[in-house]
Amino acid sequence: MKTIKEKILKFEKLYRAAFVNSLSGFKSANLIGTISREGKTNLAIFNSVIHVGANPPLMGFLMRPVSVERHTYANIKETNHFTINHINKEIFKQAHQTSARYGKEISEFDACELTPEYTETIKAPYVKESKIKIGLKFLEEQEIKSNGTIFIVGEIREVILPYDIILADGFIDIEKAGTIAISGLDGYHETKRVARLSYAKPGIKPEET
Amino acid sequence: MKTIKEKILKFEKLYRAAFVNSLSGFKSANLIGTISREGKTNLAIFNSVIHVGANPPLMGFLMRPVSVERHTYANIKETNHFTINHINKEIFKQAHQTSARYGKEISEFDACELTPEYTETIKAPYVKESKIKIGLKFLEEQEIKSNGTIFIVGEIREVILPYDIILADGFIDIEKAGTIAISGLDGYHETKRVARLSYAKPGIKPEET
Repeated sequence: MKTIKEKILKFEKLYRAAFVNSLSGFKSANLIGTISREGKTNLAIFNSVIHVGANPPLMGFLMRPVSVERHTYANIKETNHFTINHINKEIFKQAHQTSARYGKEISEFDACELTPEYTETIKAPYVKESKIKIGLKFLEEQEIKSNGTIFIVGEIREVILPYDIILADGFIDIEKAGTIAISGLDGYHETKRVARLSYAKPGIKPEET
Repeated sequence: MKTIKEKILKFEKLYRAAFVNSLSGFKSANLIGTISREGKTNLAIFNSVIHVGANPPLMGFLMRPVSVERHTYANIKETNHFTINHINKEIFKQAHQTSARYGKEISEFDACELTPEYTETIKAPYVKESKIKIGLKFLEEQEIKSNGTIFIVGEIREVILPYDIILADGFIDIEKAGTIAISGLDGYHETKRVARLSYAKPGIKPEET
């Protein structure tokens, strides 16, 4: 079937949100941890974290600064630090629960039964229960003029992960770490690797490595 | 184990690319189709497509405009249109092959054995073998100053997909359509849905819906 923009705009609001949020494909599942100047922690689920660059090592994510995500934004602007923590099968329900509208006085770590963990490098809490954790320093923000969302970019300062999931060529076996994928607004998926493919060159069919 | 930015910068180049590209979690797997003013088609795999907004319906992706992706960028600037096509299990090897460095005179549709398909609404080719296809009009670009990448935003003008994968609440069962997920630079994964969870509210545990 085919649908067009004019029909999508007439969809009921929640139906439209579920539909359009499904269109980008599978999404990353991460918890972003921050802390305010006063020491109040915040934790929020994001499905928009993407790779930005390897040298320097950069990651980014898109946020709606006037929504429930505003505590994350305010804290990043205050401390310049944030953490990205992979969501795995053991904690996806707690992770989902961080999207509830808690007041600024409530820490989602307490409300959602996840454990903050700190290092000396990063002024933001990691999620102890996560197996792959990245500590970042805020670098820049770019406003998407079309709808006021903000793309936040951070530089990777620290990576904490199990040694035995790093393969010989640097590829990290995130599936082995139990990292899950998201579809739409509320679908959680485990994965099964089909293949890794060789570097593509014209005239040569990719091989499974 | 823990690693820090200074060590990551000393990694061998390909090792670093594989490592850092793995850190964001699972990625969407899409083919972006474009056409030049002269009618030459282009097709390129992207793992950075994300949801930007539901009203108006917006999607975005990050690109390196001076790399192999430059034909995609040039065509979008020429025609203002592009298509996003989900990669499924049947075509992931052809999709991967589009990342080879073909010259501008070669269409990846021909070189990678995929079929262009057109509608009256969008001045860009869809991938016939894809089951979920989105036609977009270019809206804006934002340069990430930290490394010169560009975040491209398009407005959804048209969506083509099988009727029987749209659930009653608007959620699209992309898993049923065979859409795959990417990890790192070259890992391809099929998925198995663990659960959909209810809308999160403070004090109420999320339920499987």
